Amino acid sequence: MASEREFTRSLARFFGTAKGLSVGIGDDAAVVRNPARNSVLCCDPVVEGVHFLADTPPPLVGQKAVNRNLADLAAMGAVADWLLVSLVLPTDYPSAHCMALLRGVRKAARAGGCTVVGGDVASTHGPLVVTVTAVGHLPGRALTRSGARVGDHVCVSGPLGGSRLGAHLRFRPPLAEGRWLATQRAVSAAMDVSDGLLLDLATMLTASGVPGAELEVAAIPIAAAARRAARASGRSPLQHALADGEDHVLLWTQRGRQLAAGGPLVPRAREPLGRVIQEPGLWLIHPNGRRERVEPLGFQHRLSPS
Amino acid sequence: MASEREFTRSLARFFGTAKGLSVGIGDDAAVVRNPARNSVLCCDPVVEGVHFLADTPPPLVGQKAVNRNLADLAAMGAVADWLLVSLVLPTDYPSAHCMALLRGVRKAARAGGCTVVGGDVASTHGPLVVTVTAVGHLPGRALTRSGARVGDHVCVSGPLGGSRLGAHLRFRPPLAEGRWLATQRAVSAAMDVSDGLLLDLATMLTASGVPGAELEVAAIPIAAAARRAARASGRSPLQHALADGEDHVLLWTQRGRQLAAGGPLVPRAREPLGRVIQEPGLWLIHPNGRRERVEPLGFQHRLSPS
Repeated sequence: MASEREFTRSLARFFGTAKGLSVGIGDDAAVVRNPARNSVLCCDPVVEGVHFLADTPPPLVGQKAVNRNLADLAAMGAVADWLLVSLVLPTDYPSAHCMALLRGVRKAARAGGCTVVGGDVASTHGPLVVTVTAVGHLPGRALTRSGARVGDHVCVSGPLGGSRLGAHLRFRPPLAEGRWLATQRAVSAAMDVSDGLLLDLATMLTASGVPGAELEVAAIPIAAAARRAARASGRSPLQHALADGEDHVLLWTQRGRQLAAGGPLVPRAREPLGRVIQEPGLWLIHPNGRRERVEPLGFQHRLSPS
Repeated sequence: MASEREFTRSLARFFGTAKGLSVGIGDDAAVVRNPARNSVLCCDPVVEGVHFLADTPPPLVGQKAVNRNLADLAAMGAVADWLLVSLVLPTDYPSAHCMALLRGVRKAARAGGCTVVGGDVASTHGPLVVTVTAVGHLPGRALTRSGARVGDHVCVSGPLGGSRLGAHLRFRPPLAEGRWLATQRAVSAAMDVSDGLLLDLATMLTASGVPGAELEVAAIPIAAAARRAARASGRSPLQHALADGEDHVLLWTQRGRQLAAGGPLVPRAREPLGRVIQEPGLWLIHPNGRRERVEPLGFQHRLSPS
């Protein structure tokens, strides 16, 4: 039996230290030196049976738990600095799985340029829950969801759809893209695509107080996985791209069709896929010119009735 | 049915805003202005069946989830600024319970002088899990666990034992005490009593690299609840005070018997209950002068075998 205290001590060694970390794992709280005037904070749980399955390899669970939060920091234009990891482990969860999960956490933290500085562990008779908190800072301005204006172009940083076939566990948080977009004055709003393009776009429009948007179907980057998913689901690849969620690419709006040259965007992400419009609702423009109004369908955690 | 997006919007109104909060609930992450050069970070889950029961009133669950973290900040000598709240709700958890829980969160946040600025919600087939992250700052130096030296006196800020009879849900985080102790140069180490006095004292000794401590039984402040618990358990009130845990009072060491006058400590907390000694282990000195070696027993979340 490993005790909680021994486990905590081993974690301090496992995650190591970093510049700016004054008090790390093993005290009541971590003490860090702030690299900037502002901090950016987010916190997101992943739950067995919701965000991953009982047979998902533990390292991928750890990676996903970290990268979901890093994608949120990316969407603000932030640099990731510190992570806290709260584990709620099933009572029969093997220590070897726990360490494998934490190796996934460490790998994702290192790839994102940040360090695990604290957290806690508890046991439960229920499913595995991994809650990561990410703390970052802004080298420049914050990208928010609320700056989109009528006439702005709509862009995404990567292909969409079919993430359930594997990308939801293996995506790379678009930190470099977010930081670069924050340097571009033409960029008016940004968020990461977690609940599906249509639903997240609708969220951005609402946050920005603008009525609608239209998307050109031919310009929507459809992931290869969306095509594979379509073969099994009976839905179209486009439907998967519009509504699947957990893509964790950036969705943003910009004034003008083109941003400055250079930067980390893939060429495809430099071509807008739509526009913010005065007309209410979400509209698709099909290659034959037909305009179709669509509902903002995507993934939502439903809450039970009161 | 309330959707996650509507729920998030209602939370922004519910928790309100605060000085220094640039971007609050509803974006990918919160953006806050740092009041000091350093930040203090901690994160702790509370789980149904472990830290509270299925019939615990939801406001008390919310309060406990916040106050456990505020007690950790208190133990560092920190001021609490910001909270993130991650809810993993059973699929059949009523919305009314959820809002009652969040009222408990808000009440504890306000009492602690801090503001909820973000978080997330997910549904599960398992038990309720509430994970709070607290972010604070240091007005002065950090109190750590690692500064105790042989000859220092051992003190606690309040009575111990029997917290399971109710105090574990209703304790007040000792923020004022922690901040004041951080101003006292004689204070060498501090932590909050979460796993039981003996176990936490042993943790502090290990962190400080000192061999042992002795406690005078007559000086240990035993809570009234420890006496009530003893009537049912067959153990002594002293045993409850030494090992129950979840007291969330501060445990600290100081050079010299007396700190400066003034400050928020209750008179009893100004009387040391023990000393750090050169002899290894934990020792009780009974009123008749008998010395008894005791094991550091208390609450630990056991991890399963590898």
